[in-house]
Amino acid sequence: MSHKAIILGASGYTGAELVRLISTHPSIDIVALSADRKAGMEMAEVFPHLRHLDLPKLQKIDEIDFNRANIVFCALPHATSQAVIRTLPADIKIIDLSADFRLRDPEAYEAWYGKPHSAIDLQEEAVYGLTEFYRDEIEGARLVAGTGCNAATGQYALRPLIEAGVIDLDEIIIDLKAAVSGAGRSLKEMLLHAELSESVVPYSAGGKHRHLGEFDQEFSKLAGREVKVQFTPHLIPADRGILVTAYVKGDPNEIHKTLADAYGDETFLQVLPFGELPQMKHIRGSNFCHLGVAGDRLPGRAIVVAVLDNLTKGSSGQALQNANLMLGEEETAGLTLAPVFP
Amino acid sequence: MSHKAIILGASGYTGAELVRLISTHPSIDIVALSADRKAGMEMAEVFPHLRHLDLPKLQKIDEIDFNRANIVFCALPHATSQAVIRTLPADIKIIDLSADFRLRDPEAYEAWYGKPHSAIDLQEEAVYGLTEFYRDEIEGARLVAGTGCNAATGQYALRPLIEAGVIDLDEIIIDLKAAVSGAGRSLKEMLLHAELSESVVPYSAGGKHRHLGEFDQEFSKLAGREVKVQFTPHLIPADRGILVTAYVKGDPNEIHKTLADAYGDETFLQVLPFGELPQMKHIRGSNFCHLGVAGDRLPGRAIVVAVLDNLTKGSSGQALQNANLMLGEEETAGLTLAPVFP
Amino acid sequence: MSHKAIILGASGYTGAELVRLISTHPSIDIVALSADRKAGMEMAEVFPHLRHLDLPKLQKIDEIDFNRANIVFCALPHATSQAVIRTLPADIKIIDLSADFRLRDPEAYEAWYGKPHSAIDLQEEAVYGLTEFYRDEIEGARLVAGTGCNAATGQYALRPLIEAGVIDLDEIIIDLKAAVSGAGRSLKEMLLHAELSESVVPYSAGGKHRHLGEFDQEFSKLAGREVKVQFTPHLIPADRGILVTAYVKGDPNEIHKTLADAYGDETFLQVLPFGELPQMKHIRGSNFCHLGVAGDRLPGRAIVVAVLDNLTKGSSGQALQNANLMLGEEETAGLTLAPVFP
Amino acid sequence: MSHKAIILGASGYTGAELVRLISTHPSIDIVALSADRKAGMEMAEVFPHLRHLDLPKLQKIDEIDFNRANIVFCALPHATSQAVIRTLPADIKIIDLSADFRLRDPEAYEAWYGKPHSAIDLQEEAVYGLTEFYRDEIEGARLVAGTGCNAATGQYALRPLIEAGVIDLDEIIIDLKAAVSGAGRSLKEMLLHAELSESVVPYSAGGKHRHLGEFDQEFSKLAGREVKVQFTPHLIPADRGILVTAYVKGDPNEIHKTLADAYGDETFLQVLPFGELPQMKHIRGSNFCHLGVAGDRLPGRAIVVAVLDNLTKGSSGQALQNANLMLGEEETAGLTLAPVFP
Repeated sequence: MSHKAIILGASGYTGAELVRLISTHPSIDIVALSADRKAGMEMAEVFPHLRHLDLPKLQKIDEIDFNRANIVFCALPHATSQAVIRTLPADIKIIDLSADFRLRDPEAYEAWYGKPHSAIDLQEEAVYGLTEFYRDEIEGARLVAGTGCNAATGQYALRPLIEAGVIDLDEIIIDLKAAVSGAGRSLKEMLLHAELSESVVPYSAGGKHRHLGEFDQEFSKLAGREVKVQFTPHLIPADRGILVTAYVKGDPNEIHKTLADAYGDETFLQVLPFGELPQMKHIRGSNFCHLGVAGDRLPGRAIVVAVLDNLTKGSSGQALQNANLMLGEEETAGLTLAPVFP
Repeated sequence: MSHKAIILGASGYTGAELVRLISTHPSIDIVALSADRKAGMEMAEVFPHLRHLDLPKLQKIDEIDFNRANIVFCALPHATSQAVIRTLPADIKIIDLSADFRLRDPEAYEAWYGKPHSAIDLQEEAVYGLTEFYRDEIEGARLVAGTGCNAATGQYALRPLIEAGVIDLDEIIIDLKAAVSGAGRSLKEMLLHAELSESVVPYSAGGKHRHLGEFDQEFSKLAGREVKVQFTPHLIPADRGILVTAYVKGDPNEIHKTLADAYGDETFLQVLPFGELPQMKHIRGSNFCHLGVAGDRLPGRAIVVAVLDNLTKGSSGQALQNANLMLGEEETAGLTLAPVFP
Repeated sequence: MSHKAIILGASGYTGAELVRLISTHPSIDIVALSADRKAGMEMAEVFPHLRHLDLPKLQKIDEIDFNRANIVFCALPHATSQAVIRTLPADIKIIDLSADFRLRDPEAYEAWYGKPHSAIDLQEEAVYGLTEFYRDEIEGARLVAGTGCNAATGQYALRPLIEAGVIDLDEIIIDLKAAVSGAGRSLKEMLLHAELSESVVPYSAGGKHRHLGEFDQEFSKLAGREVKVQFTPHLIPADRGILVTAYVKGDPNEIHKTLADAYGDETFLQVLPFGELPQMKHIRGSNFCHLGVAGDRLPGRAIVVAVLDNLTKGSSGQALQNANLMLGEEETAGLTLAPVFP
Repeated sequence: MSHKAIILGASGYTGAELVRLISTHPSIDIVALSADRKAGMEMAEVFPHLRHLDLPKLQKIDEIDFNRANIVFCALPHATSQAVIRTLPADIKIIDLSADFRLRDPEAYEAWYGKPHSAIDLQEEAVYGLTEFYRDEIEGARLVAGTGCNAATGQYALRPLIEAGVIDLDEIIIDLKAAVSGAGRSLKEMLLHAELSESVVPYSAGGKHRHLGEFDQEFSKLAGREVKVQFTPHLIPADRGILVTAYVKGDPNEIHKTLADAYGDETFLQVLPFGELPQMKHIRGSNFCHLGVAGDRLPGRAIVVAVLDNLTKGSSGQALQNANLMLGEEETAGLTLAPVFP
């Protein structure tokens, strides 16, 4: 059976990535694409790399007949997302890629995003979309909240360790290196080639990055107590990819074993042999996450390194993986493309 | 039915790209991989981006049982390639990605490659692998010679124009911009990040690049007279992709129409509307070739711009496309992955 | 004696480059900097790489006392530039880096820039700023028009050849590869890292690029007849640098000798031995232009390759070189910094 | 008075950088250049960006008359360096850029570099070359050991804090991002453009990087007790630059004040206002080090970020700064070039 999908916000990078991935999916068809400011244009004009595909024209959201579809991918900016999603038919499944439904607590939402949530009932209903850890809930969900791409990477590195209690919960540092597409196709000076190439740029340092809201929520829930990590993201001159270097205290071998055991059956989460660390380029364009653990010369200390493609496993690939679960399809359908290297 | 494939020279970029593409192919299995100097290693050690795949270990060529396979992809260096291919069983289909069987004329081979051909009977037998123009021969061939990646790009831009006689055959200039993976995974100073980033490097200028042998052979054959183009390749700081800017004399609209007509039914050859020119990034990681034509302010002059991914449409994707024909499979099987952008 | 300089439009890349170069100049002090939208800010906020310098705050133009200075560098957008320059005191020397005074013919200006020139008397007075060819006029000028960066590169490759009559004037093709800073610090999608990295983008193809106005004017004047070149610029993923590949007809050795003779006494124009071609990275951050000539296998054809840094020799370095002449200083003062490699 | 300098190992990046910097120095002339495998070649053949300079030919070391010089810059590989330096005349001043004389303790040298030191008397004599902290010793030294480039960056971030006792000495983590030229002009697969672009590569993790030897020595000496930091370097796709993100425990404002006070009079060490963090690109090609401090949301935690150019302040610029001191010249001579941005 073929599913009918709508992508809202198709003129951004995550929208384009959804189209790319769905184009090889065996049982999902795209029936509508929205992009308010580019309504009326062909997708090939906005993203010439998709010109070989037979795609619907871009429309305004209010021109779309949602009854034609059984699943909606919502790649709109946060705040816009909650306003739109509350107007959708009740029987349609929704995967939101914005930040709007990631945080369970309305106060936490307001604290991190600067205004009250306007759809608190939906916020309650939404399931957090980190697939490997919320599979059962996602299968039965109507509304799934895609995670932050940085938040996903950090959680893949740390969740099993926090849950198993093999690391010191008060001494977790996440130093993150992020490629530029995570910031979207937005016209900001720091995203210009001339500004970013040959550079490394720390940003939102000191506990200001919004994905901390997700870390706080998830890690505290796992630990059964408050867990607050230290988190510094850095923009690096690359297009796709996130590399997390997590500094933790605990027994390195136990840490490695805990991760390897937790992910042993996971298709997309690949744990390298102890002492080997992954490189960012080795997952580009794919839904894989590579993880590695190395001990330090200082006893009781280790680093955990995790890499994934922010546009794939970090957002659109994750969204499709969740859609597969929600639609009763094979979880990996359309997602087993090998990374593009070099 | 499932085909059994062997890849010789699997430790280079074209070998890895073959594995990537075949991993999504519905009916080809890889049964052996060779890499003489890395024999005994896992492919994941040589190319960690392929670690999720269940692949045979790398072997020496003489350890491989060729009877297990019905098709061999030979990604060895030229000269080595002819020596190896002549030893293969007679009933196995072979796609050679080296330069060894591209030129029909033994003298031309010797002139461009600096030594006599050692397998002239095979050279005679081989079919030139530019799929869209040699489909019938490829379908029935035992040995297909993959084209040069630069040679493929230039030919896609120019063959229909030369054949139709709509451009001046004595005034063709090909200015080519090539990403670095075309040079392979070889340790050369000019391929270092520190040397190439922020640079553009003209090389083999003045008629010295070996792919001129292919241009001469194919263009002259098409025209029924000697055609010699002027050709300057430039290395640019990118990993994948070739952009050809071909300067021709003729009526721009007729040139565009000729190309658009010639490629109208081709899946992988996409001609943009008149006046629009393609960008290199828009085909990255895919088997597509985008083409555009623009007229000049000087009457009777035009540029034709063609872009493709040297590792995909320029070599390993082409090889798989040819394999599909040789094996009686759908020509596009395993090759319709959308480009990875950004 | 120390000269007093004002830089108008200091918040752009050419403005910052002027500051960088003047900071090592033995006899020029910067007394005022303008940037209308950023007035009131410190230069270090706009360009943190200049934070070690003791610079005046950014001001609005009308806040500046021009009597404090004897030279003005005007790095404003075209059209704005003519409006501002006509209001400056008559006794101040001016180097304009915009396109406003490059073309001598008001009709040509209107044709290329889309509106009539509003300061035709200044247009008449202005001297074209290609230093090595207009030294005498520049020395005595009050107003010098900096050349286009692409226009400068193409002219260094071709002027001596056109003047000497050693190439066919009707068969000149300029294929140009330009780094991204030539487009300035402007927020355009095509200038984003995510769009440009790993790409090559032809633009303004077919005779639409405005620097053709300069080529037409200068080459025709040199030849004493109309000369119209074919010109295709390509944006490449680098920050600084222009590489011109000029395709010409003529005797390669004569072409090389003509260039080598013409530039033998020039500090900044370095002609490589016959057959050697320059690389873009080898002039980065400097005022040098490297040139090379190679013959083709087709008799009577050659390529001339020229590279320079668009922000230095292509604009701000050229401006300072001209300022040195206008101020009676050593022409090379502040300009002999070696390229930064790698 | 003019000094006469010899550069040994001039065919590497640090050698070329020395030539670049000395070329604008008012009182140092280069009288000889060595490069054993490239002896007989012109420097312009090895480094075309230096072709405008009038430089001696490359020679073998044993062809050089050391009596012509009063200072030697030794940019040879470690181990080679100690062998060569012990043969130099006793009255010549020497700045060694290798690792050979950085560690005071022969056992530490052997532990980190894998073989015994062969010139222990010189090791004792050598002064550690971190200019701002060893000025007096360097002024009077005959042999100065240039620091590791990573080691320099980490020390600029941390020395005043350790000395002042404002951070917890047992909880220091240095996460470092290094551009590729720090690895030299060596032919290694991981340094290829195709491998490094679009990637981030952690290396020597877990306490294996040799620069830890310098951290241990210097930090322990400052603290008067053993101090061992955790240190993870990452290779990033850029040519020049190091960015250190140091995670420390202490009062953020006190940390900032300590750094700002310590470096208030230093020309090259620029401390940004509290809460602002430096970017790697803003010091490219210069001898400046920018530093910033930000507090964390977790009380008593801070990050210190330091950036410098590994080839300039991290090696060759440091070497020239030390040479100035040793020769009685102005410390900043030849080193005040502004960074090249973009």
